[in-house]
Amino acid sequence: MALAIRLARQGWYTTRPNPRVGCVLVRDGQLVGQGAHLKAGEAHAEVHALRQAGALAQGADAYVTLEPCSHHGRTPPCADALIAAGVRRVCIAQLDSNPLVAGRGVQKLRDAGIEVAHGLLEADARALNPGFFRRMETGLPRVTLKLAMSLDGRTAMASGESQWITGAEARQDVQRLRAASCAIITGADSVLVDDSRLTVRDKQLTGLYGFSQPLRVITDSRLRVPAAAAIFRQPGTTLLATREASVGARPQQAEQLRQAGAELLVQPGAASPLNLQRLLSDLAERGCNEVLVEAGASLAGAFLQAGLVQELRIYMAPMLLGDTARGLLQLPGLERLADAIHLKVLDIRALGQDWRFILEPQGLS
Amino acid sequence: MALAIRLARQGWYTTRPNPRVGCVLVRDGQLVGQGAHLKAGEAHAEVHALRQAGALAQGADAYVTLEPCSHHGRTPPCADALIAAGVRRVCIAQLDSNPLVAGRGVQKLRDAGIEVAHGLLEADARALNPGFFRRMETGLPRVTLKLAMSLDGRTAMASGESQWITGAEARQDVQRLRAASCAIITGADSVLVDDSRLTVRDKQLTGLYGFSQPLRVITDSRLRVPAAAAIFRQPGTTLLATREASVGARPQQAEQLRQAGAELLVQPGAASPLNLQRLLSDLAERGCNEVLVEAGASLAGAFLQAGLVQELRIYMAPMLLGDTARGLLQLPGLERLADAIHLKVLDIRALGQDWRFILEPQGLS
Repeated sequence: MALAIRLARQGWYTTRPNPRVGCVLVRDGQLVGQGAHLKAGEAHAEVHALRQAGALAQGADAYVTLEPCSHHGRTPPCADALIAAGVRRVCIAQLDSNPLVAGRGVQKLRDAGIEVAHGLLEADARALNPGFFRRMETGLPRVTLKLAMSLDGRTAMASGESQWITGAEARQDVQRLRAASCAIITGADSVLVDDSRLTVRDKQLTGLYGFSQPLRVITDSRLRVPAAAAIFRQPGTTLLATREASVGARPQQAEQLRQAGAELLVQPGAASPLNLQRLLSDLAERGCNEVLVEAGASLAGAFLQAGLVQELRIYMAPMLLGDTARGLLQLPGLERLADAIHLKVLDIRALGQDWRFILEPQGLS
Repeated sequence: MALAIRLARQGWYTTRPNPRVGCVLVRDGQLVGQGAHLKAGEAHAEVHALRQAGALAQGADAYVTLEPCSHHGRTPPCADALIAAGVRRVCIAQLDSNPLVAGRGVQKLRDAGIEVAHGLLEADARALNPGFFRRMETGLPRVTLKLAMSLDGRTAMASGESQWITGAEARQDVQRLRAASCAIITGADSVLVDDSRLTVRDKQLTGLYGFSQPLRVITDSRLRVPAAAAIFRQPGTTLLATREASVGARPQQAEQLRQAGAELLVQPGAASPLNLQRLLSDLAERGCNEVLVEAGASLAGAFLQAGLVQELRIYMAPMLLGDTARGLLQLPGLERLADAIHLKVLDIRALGQDWRFILEPQGLS
């Protein structure tokens, strides 16, 4: 099963919106087949493993990181394929919480007389797909909030100067984080001020089989982003989330954005801040498992305060910028120490000259 | 020598203004004497070790962490004691940079026909007394700046509410840091707002043989601190550093402070901010090796920007307070990213729920 989990990781950057899955076939103590799901619409892990095993799959034990699917999606059900190949036993790390599967894969196998066990290395298998499981269970994607700051919690000088606070290794890590995300959300200001592109540019990642650029999402309730912004000229899809009233007030701007390639996601109502939970729920419906928020102090704070963030990733450059520099997070209404947002530190590690913190907000979501 | 260094650490909190020193005597492969300097005015490490060895010191090898003194201070020269005891060989980790010693201890021993070597575990021996060596070599003490903050670099709410940002383990660590310091500097505001006492209260530390409270130093160029402040009623000495013009303008306040027990350290000139380098140099003259600065954003920033800080110790509570909360450091004039104060991370570790960073400012001092 440990091998199956390692295999599943081969699809880390490419299986979306599908889960990452690995499969190993063993007969008489010998490895006879192995496979990983790599790209949505193509063969699942079990099918790759069965193809490799060929006739040797007969009587073999299958180790699968996720419950084999029982429904016809873009490919036929894997449970059927395992039955047809004549495997003797199926060992599953994690049951699928997809309502289309949810125990039916196991049932189908058992009905065919196959011995089924599950729960082996379950936590590791779950960690392969934190967003997928969250989406299946809550209807919302898993949200990681990425921030970069100086040791004294500053993101830019008062003038706005902010390039290169963190070094090459940290930026490289952000590229991996982006590549593993189904969608990347940013605010209108980041596009207006920094002309952010939110793309994966690391060739080692973009060159992976099955790779496609994550969905880019701009929150722009007042339709301020210009159609000429670089983000609309990047490969892949850019979604612009806005309000009905703004589209009504500036139909020409909306049309220009559409012509520039933006897909508009329009929330009903006035040009007030967007309903972020609704935005996330819309993204989940589009199949987004892991969503990355790369935003300024205001939007980042809003996601946090709404309890919508499951993980913070903070890149800290060991430098001091002083109190006139720009702060990390706007948390309006937080006036008493008792209301502070507490975090659990999951990991701290060096990335070149910088340090990466992985943190989990406590008691919010 | 490793044992001698361990012994020297026994005096970590108590030898000031003297250096921490350990000594081991070995004859025929057997440990015959060991000692550490514990308290200024009392026996040095070598004397303790020689006393323990008695007649066995004759022909023994002595391992001393610091060059034995050659001058009459409050106790007779240790070099003479080693000669009189008839040791065969003296191995020294670190030569003394005290101009009163500086090679003369070695010379004296060699003149008496004793074989002398030095340099063994030199860096470890130096780390026993970073402040002492700095004072001897530069005329200034070693300054550690202590700060406590949230993950987003905030020290208190906008209202000033700040108690208990960090937990018990971090505060315990600060007690040890205070206890190992010759002096603790704070600003007038800390005394005015928090009624800071700056004392060591941990009984495990105050109960140590030879322990005395570190010198407390308040920077108060305008003589604003009230004579009724708690800090003046603590055991030990409180120094109030101020300006001549302020004493002239408020002679009665100065007198009240003196009567409350404050010792006034008066810098010439108008009530402008104090000359911090001069303050430190005055403290060095009083025998201060390690000085701790526990101050607010303004004074802490001033020490840093003046290049007077050798170490930052930042206690970070994993919580977020948001941009309206108070910032960590005022660094006036720092407006370009290129002017940022860069830090070298020496250590990061967990202290209960909190994290401690030990950092070294780069390119400042």
